[in-house]
Amino acid sequence: MIPVEEALQTVLRVANRLDTVAVSLSDALGHVLAEDVLALEPLPPFPASIKDGYAVVASDGPGEYPVILESRAGSDATPLKVTPGTVAYVTTGGPIPDGADAVVQVEDTEEVTANPDGLKRVKILTRVTQGHDIRNVGSDIEKDSTVLKAGELIDCAEIGLLATVGLTSVKVYRRPSIAVLSTGDELVEADTKNLKWGQIRDSNRPMLLAAATQQKCKTVDLGICRDEEESLYNVFDKAFSSNIDILITSGGVSMGDKDFVKPCLAKRGTIYFEKVVMKPGKPLTFAEIKGKEGSKKILTFGLPGNPVSCMVVHARIAHPIKGDPFRPEYHRAVLKWALNDGTGRPGYVAESTGKQASSRLLSMKSANALLNLEATNQIILPAGTSVPAILLSDKVDTQNHSESTIDSSIRQSEPGF
Amino acid sequence: MIPVEEALQTVLRVANRLDTVAVSLSDALGHVLAEDVLALEPLPPFPASIKDGYAVVASDGPGEYPVILESRAGSDATPLKVTPGTVAYVTTGGPIPDGADAVVQVEDTEEVTANPDGLKRVKILTRVTQGHDIRNVGSDIEKDSTVLKAGELIDCAEIGLLATVGLTSVKVYRRPSIAVLSTGDELVEADTKNLKWGQIRDSNRPMLLAAATQQKCKTVDLGICRDEEESLYNVFDKAFSSNIDILITSGGVSMGDKDFVKPCLAKRGTIYFEKVVMKPGKPLTFAEIKGKEGSKKILTFGLPGNPVSCMVVHARIAHPIKGDPFRPEYHRAVLKWALNDGTGRPGYVAESTGKQASSRLLSMKSANALLNLEATNQIILPAGTSVPAILLSDKVDTQNHSESTIDSSIRQSEPGF
Ligand SMILES: [Mg+2]
Ligand SMILES: [Mg+2]
Repeated sequence: MIPVEEALQTVLRVANRLDTVAVSLSDALGHVLAEDVLALEPLPPFPASIKDGYAVVASDGPGEYPVILESRAGSDATPLKVTPGTVAYVTTGGPIPDGADAVVQVEDTEEVTANPDGLKRVKILTRVTQGHDIRNVGSDIEKDSTVLKAGELIDCAEIGLLATVGLTSVKVYRRPSIAVLSTGDELVEADTKNLKWGQIRDSNRPMLLAAATQQKCKTVDLGICRDEEESLYNVFDKAFSSNIDILITSGGVSMGDKDFVKPCLAKRGTIYFEKVVMKPGKPLTFAEIKGKEGSKKILTFGLPGNPVSCMVVHARIAHPIKGDPFRPEYHRAVLKWALNDGTGRPGYVAESTGKQASSRLLSMKSANALLNLEATNQIILPAGTSVPAILLSDKVDTQNHSESTIDSSIRQSEPGF
Repeated sequence: MIPVEEALQTVLRVANRLDTVAVSLSDALGHVLAEDVLALEPLPPFPASIKDGYAVVASDGPGEYPVILESRAGSDATPLKVTPGTVAYVTTGGPIPDGADAVVQVEDTEEVTANPDGLKRVKILTRVTQGHDIRNVGSDIEKDSTVLKAGELIDCAEIGLLATVGLTSVKVYRRPSIAVLSTGDELVEADTKNLKWGQIRDSNRPMLLAAATQQKCKTVDLGICRDEEESLYNVFDKAFSSNIDILITSGGVSMGDKDFVKPCLAKRGTIYFEKVVMKPGKPLTFAEIKGKEGSKKILTFGLPGNPVSCMVVHARIAHPIKGDPFRPEYHRAVLKWALNDGTGRPGYVAESTGKQASSRLLSMKSANALLNLEATNQIILPAGTSVPAILLSDKVDTQNHSESTIDSSIRQSEPGF
């Protein structure tokens, strides 16, 4: 029986970074960068106008001026320069012509109609300082700066940055290929219409496959295996000789006389731990198997069969989240923001998802947080108790903790259940 | 110029629920349920053992008993009943045989070897109360209860619940088909190697397409349109006669003489608003266009060209997030959990992503929160100031606000920039 933190550290120590692959910009979303990304040009690459208006010589000040050119975004360079006493029409994002050193927005100007000389003229109404409404070269991104680092998750903004620097093929870490197996004589497929006595539908496999898909992993569905030693060896050996990186099983890891997952894994590789101090989810086998080619490492997680234990253990240990400290007892809850969290200040208020039986999947439904009830030894926590929580979210990734106040009293599940 | 909240309410009022489609369980992840889901059977469907051990008659108490049957999960019903003075072997999740009313876990028993009568016997070491370690019929899910409601997002736990109740095809709302167009003479494709004077690479379109893909929407890439009225009409008319539900454009909505997006949309449909009080992102055109068949509504969002304005406006208004109140000024920040958030209590600490220019995509990178700086009128907020924040996260969905403390002082961007 080892603490959760030790279990996580062990998994991270045994796990290897996978190899890298190149993906196109349109496929890069959700992948993890395997290279630093540099900006070879500054952004903007030219001094750019922040407004639609007129590029001026700041020292000229208010007055009527001839508009000697229209400097448009994307237009070719023009030999015309803005000299004192002249201005140029500019648009948002467009280049500032040589000679100009400030922009006066169109709202602070007045069009002058009917110019006798045929030349467009404009009345500048305000005085601006040098550099006003101009984005300097490199003010958004400096030339040769690192805009993204290896190890960063590629979300939408990162896609934009890759496009900006012109990188349309990018090196990312290959996502693991994950095989999922359910074990148990009681299990039948989800599409089974009439359950026989003692049967339940397998919910762990669809959940774990969905979680893997969500993480952009390739998945292999290994189906349901009966509680028979030989069948289990057959499925395992087939899986271990295939091209998977991770095998996740559920069920078959408790004290029953037909719980063969642990002994079978022990025969095929190295077991690092079998039990973790957490609730729900005590039994958890983590093993390393050498794949067929010898060099390949297959990480195997033997998760508990109860669906909530299964998913909580998966979320905290098998799921590739790195380095956040956490604690043993996780109460599933829905966090909501309230103007008064009980302390008089705004804050999160947690509402329990109800009875916390590890078999009761409804206790996981809609839960966006796991409340850490370790610090409290009371069986019933009064409403208003403040407890730490772990947000179940990818985006608030490595430091995803929140202080929460309990909305209505929460009955702690009985020890060991 | 209307407040953000009014803009959002307008969009939600004009938008219609899309029609529903059936998806299979393996494709349901990330969709929104269009039907309530009922459990036709209770879960567990039979009284089930929570432990591996022995089903007993609780009033029997400790002592040595014959093991008259092995009641296994998934095994057929057996006529044998547990009567006072006998016990049955049970495994986790397995059915409790008739007559038994409690379970004694295997750890609290002792095997009796060498039985002269050939019958297996066991020593029960502890006294348990009626119902001990038994999950009653329906204790996880009651028969005929609603386990999921229309409108709920299908995440992994929801996949598990659908599998549990045997629903392998489920009605969900069709995801909108979203066309994305960038406008601007300055824009070139991301794969352009050498930029000419005045050119920048288009980052908005890849970002917006990625955001749509992330939301499981179908996407149509309309490319880049020059700042020419006729070209814009051509692209618009082609888009509006196609099968899209939403058109998102960026650029061409400021005060420039070639900003044609607004007038073109006005000619083709109804404009509801053009400017929203928020920073970054003031210019935002929202229009409703009648599709070719007359009955079809195409929502059109004309986003600003600056990439950060574009993404913040998209995240707050065009992106289908419902009902969370929010405020005008959004400072991009990275939230981290700290043991002392400055108040002596643990909490979130926000670190600014740096200079907040709306053209500076780096200010969006890694940001997992938008700090609301509305309440403060100071140009520089001292470190330790507590401000509300909006988490940029799907999972912490409708009530995604957090109180944050500023790590280092944050310089507010100049007004209007
Ligand atoms: Mg089992
Ligand atoms: Mg433009």
